Amino acid sequence: MFPWKTVIQLEAQSSSPLYLQMVNVIVREITSGRLPKGRKIPGSRAMADLLSLNRKTVVQAYDELMAQGWLEVFPSKGTFVSAKLPVIQPVALNQDRVSEPEELLRIKSTNFILQYENRPPHQIEINDGAPDHRLAPVDWIYKECRSLLRTGYGKRHLRYSHVLGDGNLREVLSKYLSDTRGMSIGTENVLITRGSQMGLYIILNILMDKGDAVVVGDTSYDAADWTVLQYGGKLIRVEVDEHGLNIEKLEVVLKTTDIKAIYVTPHHHFPTTVTLSTERRLRLLDLALKYNFAIIEDDYDYDFHYSSSPLLPLASLNHHEHVIYIGSFSKIFAPALRIGYVVASSRIINELGKIRRIIDRQGDPVLEHVMSLAIETGELQRHLKKTLKVYQNRRDLFCHLLTKYFSDISTFKTPEGGMAIWTRFDQKIMVGSYFPELLKKGLFMNIDKVYVRELNALRLGFASVNEKEITQAMDIMADVIKP
Amino acid sequence: MFPWKTVIQLEAQSSSPLYLQMVNVIVREITSGRLPKGRKIPGSRAMADLLSLNRKTVVQAYDELMAQGWLEVFPSKGTFVSAKLPVIQPVALNQDRVSEPEELLRIKSTNFILQYENRPPHQIEINDGAPDHRLAPVDWIYKECRSLLRTGYGKRHLRYSHVLGDGNLREVLSKYLSDTRGMSIGTENVLITRGSQMGLYIILNILMDKGDAVVVGDTSYDAADWTVLQYGGKLIRVEVDEHGLNIEKLEVVLKTTDIKAIYVTPHHHFPTTVTLSTERRLRLLDLALKYNFAIIEDDYDYDFHYSSSPLLPLASLNHHEHVIYIGSFSKIFAPALRIGYVVASSRIINELGKIRRIIDRQGDPVLEHVMSLAIETGELQRHLKKTLKVYQNRRDLFCHLLTKYFSDISTFKTPEGGMAIWTRFDQKIMVGSYFPELLKKGLFMNIDKVYVRELNALRLGFASVNEKEITQAMDIMADVIKP
Repeated sequence: MFPWKTVIQLEAQSSSPLYLQMVNVIVREITSGRLPKGRKIPGSRAMADLLSLNRKTVVQAYDELMAQGWLEVFPSKGTFVSAKLPVIQPVALNQDRVSEPEELLRIKSTNFILQYENRPPHQIEINDGAPDHRLAPVDWIYKECRSLLRTGYGKRHLRYSHVLGDGNLREVLSKYLSDTRGMSIGTENVLITRGSQMGLYIILNILMDKGDAVVVGDTSYDAADWTVLQYGGKLIRVEVDEHGLNIEKLEVVLKTTDIKAIYVTPHHHFPTTVTLSTERRLRLLDLALKYNFAIIEDDYDYDFHYSSSPLLPLASLNHHEHVIYIGSFSKIFAPALRIGYVVASSRIINELGKIRRIIDRQGDPVLEHVMSLAIETGELQRHLKKTLKVYQNRRDLFCHLLTKYFSDISTFKTPEGGMAIWTRFDQKIMVGSYFPELLKKGLFMNIDKVYVRELNALRLGFASVNEKEITQAMDIMADVIKP
Repeated sequence: MFPWKTVIQLEAQSSSPLYLQMVNVIVREITSGRLPKGRKIPGSRAMADLLSLNRKTVVQAYDELMAQGWLEVFPSKGTFVSAKLPVIQPVALNQDRVSEPEELLRIKSTNFILQYENRPPHQIEINDGAPDHRLAPVDWIYKECRSLLRTGYGKRHLRYSHVLGDGNLREVLSKYLSDTRGMSIGTENVLITRGSQMGLYIILNILMDKGDAVVVGDTSYDAADWTVLQYGGKLIRVEVDEHGLNIEKLEVVLKTTDIKAIYVTPHHHFPTTVTLSTERRLRLLDLALKYNFAIIEDDYDYDFHYSSSPLLPLASLNHHEHVIYIGSFSKIFAPALRIGYVVASSRIINELGKIRRIIDRQGDPVLEHVMSLAIETGELQRHLKKTLKVYQNRRDLFCHLLTKYFSDISTFKTPEGGMAIWTRFDQKIMVGSYFPELLKKGLFMNIDKVYVRELNALRLGFASVNEKEITQAMDIMADVIKP
């Protein structure tokens, strides 16, 4: 006899009704081959007794199973597992064989390691240059979301929306970028994304095919490297020195190799934070026009500058659509507020929109609209002004303590902008080897960074920690890291 | 003399300071070649007079331009455009040449037309099966977002988050899916996406390469077709009849062709709304195991069923990781609340996570967490219960009026679930040709649908319009559409 009592265990507390739980169990028993087709099952009264259930529940379950084609009833004979079901093949479906690799689904597997942002327990985190999410005006943002959706007109933002992003944000942002970065652009030149990473992904999609070459700095932003590799591209690394990417060395590459794009972060090179000089910027533009490749300008921290104004982005110069510009609000407010943008010629924006449609359909029209209000009401500008002051103080304290504790074993330059201090350590200490010890004392830093391993350097994010935390963190570091 | 007064026009109202506006203009003049290197420019006092500006502003601008390397000063000689800048090549940079195609950046261009969701003015819209966004508990959702971010602990959701999605949502959702769909899954089997489309995109990414074959129904969901084509895949169309995809015809294909995946919507085939029969479901699973291909099950409207319970998804049966399941909250609440999910073996989820990391880094951890609260507090279940009743009434009214006005020229079946009525029209009228006339009277329907052109059919979404709107819409249709 089939072990009905063991198999059918229903939970009264579940949000799923009892009869449906029973349906699900019986279907699983049928498809697993344990209840073969043609098998007689107990009548509803007998089953109700067996399981101590209300008979109505069982009748409801049987009705459902018959409607779905799993069971059939022959009057005066009884209820049976339907004979019309195909033979369940125990070989193919036997659970035990699942561990044999030839039974697994064929999938492609990439060899980069997925970092989950699973943070181990810690008191303080020093990241590699994120804003302080605790300062973000999130209460204002979500209050505005609520207000927007109170009216029938505002509720229209809940429908399917424009693939290129909220119309008001595109317009307001194009003006904001014109004002702050001297770009001559209009709404048609702006595509709203979920952040810089999505911008980079869709840009590379329309530029390159498998096997195509893309230039990055040596060392570069690892997620950019992965993105090129994910498309099957060939990475060519060109030296970065104290004035940014070495353009002479780039020109040597260009004379022999057709490249489709170059990925640069001219405002502050990632990870070393150097600024690409004006002279090199102009030479780079010249080369892009001469050899017809795209300059992907990731301007992730343009808004953060503490002394003189930053150099204008490459995208603000005459470039005949050869510069595609990436920006983000995530670095202004908080990493989780994921709205970024791409600026390019309208022809390119339209092609990018097609790819965006395929990978993500559209953005979050509510949050996008509220972001446009943040610019229009000056909330964003006020927040920038406030955080600039705060971050500058944090930078100064961080640099002061770095000098105090580590001037004998490390070198750094006080950064004029951005959110991180590039610090190289002497060969006599391997800075990465101290991370486990730092974590034990409550200080967490992400160890999986290429530059930690290869350059024995840290990108010390000063913006996301307050002065008390900076002092604590540096005390811990001074305590642990010793030559 | 250089026309300084004409070129340097500053806006006192701009959010950008005057000196920065001046910097931007001069940089543009230099890079456009109009101010050549070595050119002398007026001293700050002369320039201030010329432009009627405060001299301080001009000095600040010049300082900035010198710091950035655009200008240089020779004592007792004056201020000059820096001679160290590379020669600006007027040929390459001349704005007039931009229209010549050979100067444009080389980009790939796909031939699908981007639909922008630019709705023309209208009173009523009949879409092809979206929920009524006006009923969504958005005030509750954004109130919860605000509350979550009030505490320091809650604010942690603003940091970089787990690539696979909010941990609480993954856990709660896995239980919800177990309860409502009989799936035996855990947190490790769930990846949160931005919606069904992103799910489909990342799934195809790990399954197929350029040139690989993927089966879809004939007719199928057009965005699924595009996604396969975007990867350079080969689409094989298999007939769909009144029991769903014709599995015998599929088997004929499989005997000669290696396919990597099949895309199905078994609960309600898109666009015809037929349900894949139990027998065919089991045969399809058998074939997937035998020929080792993936079944991509897009279960976009499982939660909407008005009479008997729906058949369990394929993913609820024993499938040895051959079924990859896609679901979405967008169909429950509103199109713009973009949270979806993929359910698969943990091995597959991990690979999907790598692609998700590359295209979008992560989701919106705040909204994801609130979505988990919606399930835990029962808000989602209450909303479903309410809308089911409302939608059922709308369906009934819609069907009643369809019969009343169009029984002589169209056929349809009252759908048991979902949000749309599949209605085919007689050959004597071409239903698509009436759309412009309908729009004139205030009724908007999206004309760019393959099934309108090819099958002379409509997918009439009944869920997003209230009873008054349904009556108005059908009055307009009855008025306009005549044999």
